[in-house]
Amino acid sequence: MSQGKRVAIVLSGCGVFDGAEIHESVMTMLAVDRRGASYQCFAPDIAQHHVVNHLTGDATGESRNVLVEAARIARGAIKPLHEYHAEDFDALIFPGGFGAAKNLSDFAFRGDACQIDDQVKRAISATHQAGKPIGALCIAPAIIAKMFDGVTVTIGQDKDTAATLEKMGAKHQVTTHGGVCLDERYKVVTGPCYMLEATISQIADGADNVVAKLLELAGN
Amino acid sequence: MSQGKRVAIVLSGCGVFDGAEIHESVMTMLAVDRRGASYQCFAPDIAQHHVVNHLTGDATGESRNVLVEAARIARGAIKPLHEYHAEDFDALIFPGGFGAAKNLSDFAFRGDACQIDDQVKRAISATHQAGKPIGALCIAPAIIAKMFDGVTVTIGQDKDTAATLEKMGAKHQVTTHGGVCLDERYKVVTGPCYMLEATISQIADGADNVVAKLLELAGN
Repeated sequence: MSQGKRVAIVLSGCGVFDGAEIHESVMTMLAVDRRGASYQCFAPDIAQHHVVNHLTGDATGESRNVLVEAARIARGAIKPLHEYHAEDFDALIFPGGFGAAKNLSDFAFRGDACQIDDQVKRAISATHQAGKPIGALCIAPAIIAKMFDGVTVTIGQDKDTAATLEKMGAKHQVTTHGGVCLDERYKVVTGPCYMLEATISQIADGADNVVAKLLELAGN
Repeated sequence: MSQGKRVAIVLSGCGVFDGAEIHESVMTMLAVDRRGASYQCFAPDIAQHHVVNHLTGDATGESRNVLVEAARIARGAIKPLHEYHAEDFDALIFPGGFGAAKNLSDFAFRGDACQIDDQVKRAISATHQAGKPIGALCIAPAIIAKMFDGVTVTIGQDKDTAATLEKMGAKHQVTTHGGVCLDERYKVVTGPCYMLEATISQIADGADNVVAKLLELAGN
């Protein structure tokens, strides 16, 4: 039963090229709610790496804050990540978007030498130490790969990205639309979402499959 | 059959307080795709009325462009509204958010004396003249109320807003979660979405109900 379970969703801004991927974030929220669980959004209170004009793809030179922009997706109902306490939740999940690789970590720039934001590291470690499951979509599994030695994750089918994750000590499992990769040892659930060219319905299904498995692991 | 029908979705920025409501926009896209139709997003290439910090609710003094910010929801796959041609689509729909009342119109500031953005006016008129249906969610029905004399719409249950729409010559139909208001004469379909306090699942259902009726009217 998912009823009454509480999921913390960590956003990384608002928009696929410099923040959280909006469809993945919204579909994660929908999946949690549809399954009778509840969610609380969080984001680190830090500057975005940069701001990208989503029409042209160019960096704009503006400065924006990850928490403030993520609040758009959450309709204001969001907390700074340093207020996340693993004891208050049954599971933690990271939707994708470049924000996971530019704001929550610097994976987009440094690959296997990437560093993870301190608050993100703390949230993941605390959740793991509490024996609770962690989910990640799209490129966010790169963060998980850096955190857990030998963890098995998926980022879909991109060979270069998969090779980079394996350099960090992770194992990569190839998946297609709607696929779910489960690492039982670490209680980690990942899915490819927009790391594959996908329709919005495929993203809804993919997020729902990951959330279903996450809730199955949660609180048991 | 909805298969192969083409829906134009008009966004008004990115974020409930100064642009398009993100959940309503994404759920509209999902509903169209799930029903076998296709969508193209549009937004006017104009400055936002203002930028609101979605964490605090305060205006920030920044300047942002409606089309550029709406591109975040559309993952870059968006066109300026002046490129919308009614002959290329079977239906037109406006998700809600304050952007509909601050950017696409000035309803939020001027109420029944509001003016509608020229491109929005042109898109609605051309669609209506082509005999094609128009949908609107949340507060976006205010635009429709201004455009079509005596049209019946819903914005849910807010008495003050309903009274303002009636001052513009519209008729208001009270609805609750998932409700759909159909004006057969104008081929207009409206639903309350976040004009009611709602869960994200209720928004998904509400958008889907409006899209279902819109596609039923489209291309017949």
